[in-house]
Amino acid sequence: MAAETFAESKETSQELLFGASSELIEDISRALDHNDFPEVGRLTEGLHAADMADLIMRLSPEAREKFIIVFKGSITPETLAEIDDSIRKDVLEILSTKEIAAAVSELESDDALDLISDLEEAQQQEVLRAISADERAILEEVLTYPEDSAGRLMQHEIVCVPPFWTVGETISFVRDTYGLPDTFYTIYVVDSRYQPLGEIYLSALLRHRLDTIVSEIMQKTQKVVSVTQDQGEVADLFRHYNLVSAPVVDSSGRIVGMITLDDVFEVVEEEAEKDLLNLAKVHESDFRGPVATIAYWRIRWLLITLVNTLIASFVISRFQESIHQISALSFLMTINAAMGGNAGMQVVTIIIRALGTHSLRESETWKAVGKEVSVGLITGGFFSLLLGGIAALWVHDMRLGIILSLALLANMLWAAFAGTILPIVIHRFGLDPAVSAGPLLTTTTDVLGYAIFLGLATLFLL
Amino acid sequence: MAAETFAESKETSQELLFGASSELIEDISRALDHNDFPEVGRLTEGLHAADMADLIMRLSPEAREKFIIVFKGSITPETLAEIDDSIRKDVLEILSTKEIAAAVSELESDDALDLISDLEEAQQQEVLRAISADERAILEEVLTYPEDSAGRLMQHEIVCVPPFWTVGETISFVRDTYGLPDTFYTIYVVDSRYQPLGEIYLSALLRHRLDTIVSEIMQKTQKVVSVTQDQGEVADLFRHYNLVSAPVVDSSGRIVGMITLDDVFEVVEEEAEKDLLNLAKVHESDFRGPVATIAYWRIRWLLITLVNTLIASFVISRFQESIHQISALSFLMTINAAMGGNAGMQVVTIIIRALGTHSLRESETWKAVGKEVSVGLITGGFFSLLLGGIAALWVHDMRLGIILSLALLANMLWAAFAGTILPIVIHRFGLDPAVSAGPLLTTTTDVLGYAIFLGLATLFLL
Repeated sequence: MAAETFAESKETSQELLFGASSELIEDISRALDHNDFPEVGRLTEGLHAADMADLIMRLSPEAREKFIIVFKGSITPETLAEIDDSIRKDVLEILSTKEIAAAVSELESDDALDLISDLEEAQQQEVLRAISADERAILEEVLTYPEDSAGRLMQHEIVCVPPFWTVGETISFVRDTYGLPDTFYTIYVVDSRYQPLGEIYLSALLRHRLDTIVSEIMQKTQKVVSVTQDQGEVADLFRHYNLVSAPVVDSSGRIVGMITLDDVFEVVEEEAEKDLLNLAKVHESDFRGPVATIAYWRIRWLLITLVNTLIASFVISRFQESIHQISALSFLMTINAAMGGNAGMQVVTIIIRALGTHSLRESETWKAVGKEVSVGLITGGFFSLLLGGIAALWVHDMRLGIILSLALLANMLWAAFAGTILPIVIHRFGLDPAVSAGPLLTTTTDVLGYAIFLGLATLFLL
Repeated sequence: MAAETFAESKETSQELLFGASSELIEDISRALDHNDFPEVGRLTEGLHAADMADLIMRLSPEAREKFIIVFKGSITPETLAEIDDSIRKDVLEILSTKEIAAAVSELESDDALDLISDLEEAQQQEVLRAISADERAILEEVLTYPEDSAGRLMQHEIVCVPPFWTVGETISFVRDTYGLPDTFYTIYVVDSRYQPLGEIYLSALLRHRLDTIVSEIMQKTQKVVSVTQDQGEVADLFRHYNLVSAPVVDSSGRIVGMITLDDVFEVVEEEAEKDLLNLAKVHESDFRGPVATIAYWRIRWLLITLVNTLIASFVISRFQESIHQISALSFLMTINAAMGGNAGMQVVTIIIRALGTHSLRESETWKAVGKEVSVGLITGGFFSLLLGGIAALWVHDMRLGIILSLALLANMLWAAFAGTILPIVIHRFGLDPAVSAGPLLTTTTDVLGYAIFLGLATLFLL
């Protein structure tokens, strides 16, 4: 029997490693199509909340609506919490206020909040009226915290004990108190004003004599999070100190909740995603969103890069006469612009990343510039010789080769310098360099790339 | 006193939120310079292991060496574990085998392994000989698992109990057994062959009567990780099912360790970092590495993009005669290539991301292509009209405007199609599309961008 259990769970882990399988979704879609609801029920039975959410997200909009109307009874609050925002809105529209309120009551405060944030203002109020006064008070308080703050991220449900209790008293408290969180790992020790003094891991609690005073075995709280602190900063704190949980305090230092690593995990994923999408100039609108929305965001981003492209074209157009006279310029000029842009993007990305992870500080700006310019000297020197040589051989003109060499070195050094300084300056002004540093830099490397090369050629060859 | 404690910890959290402050590092550097070791000792006293690691990484190589030689007694194993690989190698060179062995003994198996992986083969053997036979056996076993596998990520130290034990027996076991991990949240219930049956959170253990049988209150193990599973897959599993920990089993299904969320946290960070750096064509060599190493990797990546640039130049050179006759082509041609490249990179990034997070499956290829081509039709149509109009007005030539319009639409539709299909095909072949899909795609959009525009112009205008 034991071996079976294992084989079973192993199979599940293999097959459903990444949510509901394509076959399962096809089978369910087909059954829904034929209104064969008993079959759908059979197929979805025992599905993990995360897989159920996955299934709901992958169904076609029509199939999804039908599924939810018929099976809303078997959609657990946990499943609702797992569905992506963009699709959850549609799901919530099908559910009644009462059904949503029931789900909100059952979830922990951070997930509950996430759910009601998706609702229209009016329905939000209705749902808040339909839940218990205690739960409403907590949610209304949380809604006053700024978005992306620790207050929104934390869970309210925590276990606190005074420092003079014994291990035995603490264990009895945990055993007998109704309304504690289902799962928790840490008990906070607080003073009479509810300010955190220390924390005790449950494993430590189990390993001490019942008459031990908790203040003797607690670990002094090292890192507290303020309720208004930005979630990105919280993630940095967890990352740097390898925290598993941290108490959250309000402006008077009173403990109001806790943040655990799994909350931070989501933040880190979100932020990494945002960095990546920013770099590629894509909006976070999910690729499962409607075509028109995706197109709208794509166009917005492309308009920014278009400005760059048009400025570069304008610069080239100023040298039409030179290109007319030396036609090799037309195909050599793109090399300099492209290399400068590519080298610059490498630098910009490294600097943005270093700023984001706080491994680069503003006080180290000139050190970073020095280093990147040194790297630029090596890479620029290398490509300057390589491409100057290729160009000279290609067009059988030593002078054009030398000019490309010089222009390339200048542009790559500029890329190293500006690629370091630009994100740091943007960051200094409190803006996010991930969004603007890339396009700004490539505009300068394009303009300089064309202008220096064509300018030198005009100056010396005409 | 309580208020003081809080004020203190708040200050620490503010000031040292991101490691050792710049001022502190400067002060310590100055004191090291003057060989004022008592002052250095005073300044570093009570520093958190993570901050101490941060300090060591930020010191200049000379100051670092001096610091480690004098203060190696106060560098804890945890600090060693926190230092980045590239710098830890230097630190380990200064420490004796005995000192390293002592650190290895004290760390949990995953951190210990990380530490000895940095050593030369010969020293690794010496360290392994210097630790206890038990610890050596564990580490030698772990070293047999493939790199980046679950076996390398897991910790060996786990708490297992048989299903027929009572809560009371389990608590006594935890209380009285020497050698259990310092902190743990989950107790695994295993059968006589050590195969996992279920797990019990410590909080559940505390909340049940002492005579309850553990198999009655355990949660059935849903997801087990195989010791050879890739760490990226483990991260996906944790992400999808919101796991906090999972048991790791060997090929016979026997439990050999556990992976916790904090281990996975590091993997996720690493992988997000890798995606970002791949997209920007930067190697993971830290920007704190030596200039020559950084330059080496930058050049390697730039050589790949250079191929693209040269192919594009070659295509343009084939149309020299056309450009010579219609000089406006020289500055209009770059628009088409740039827009196609930018639009294509948006698509490629979204698809790579969707493949990476398993929100896109290969069975959905044609659905994704259809969607992206639809988006491409809208964005392509928009920029086709906009830029065709701008070009016609700019060069006072309606025909050139129309030709740019057509070329742009064709290139952006190609970018949408190829941007979707290319990463999926690369992924199908088991390669990482994050590395190669971008450069490959922009080569095609550059070549097509120049060839279609210049080709049409040659065909209709000359």
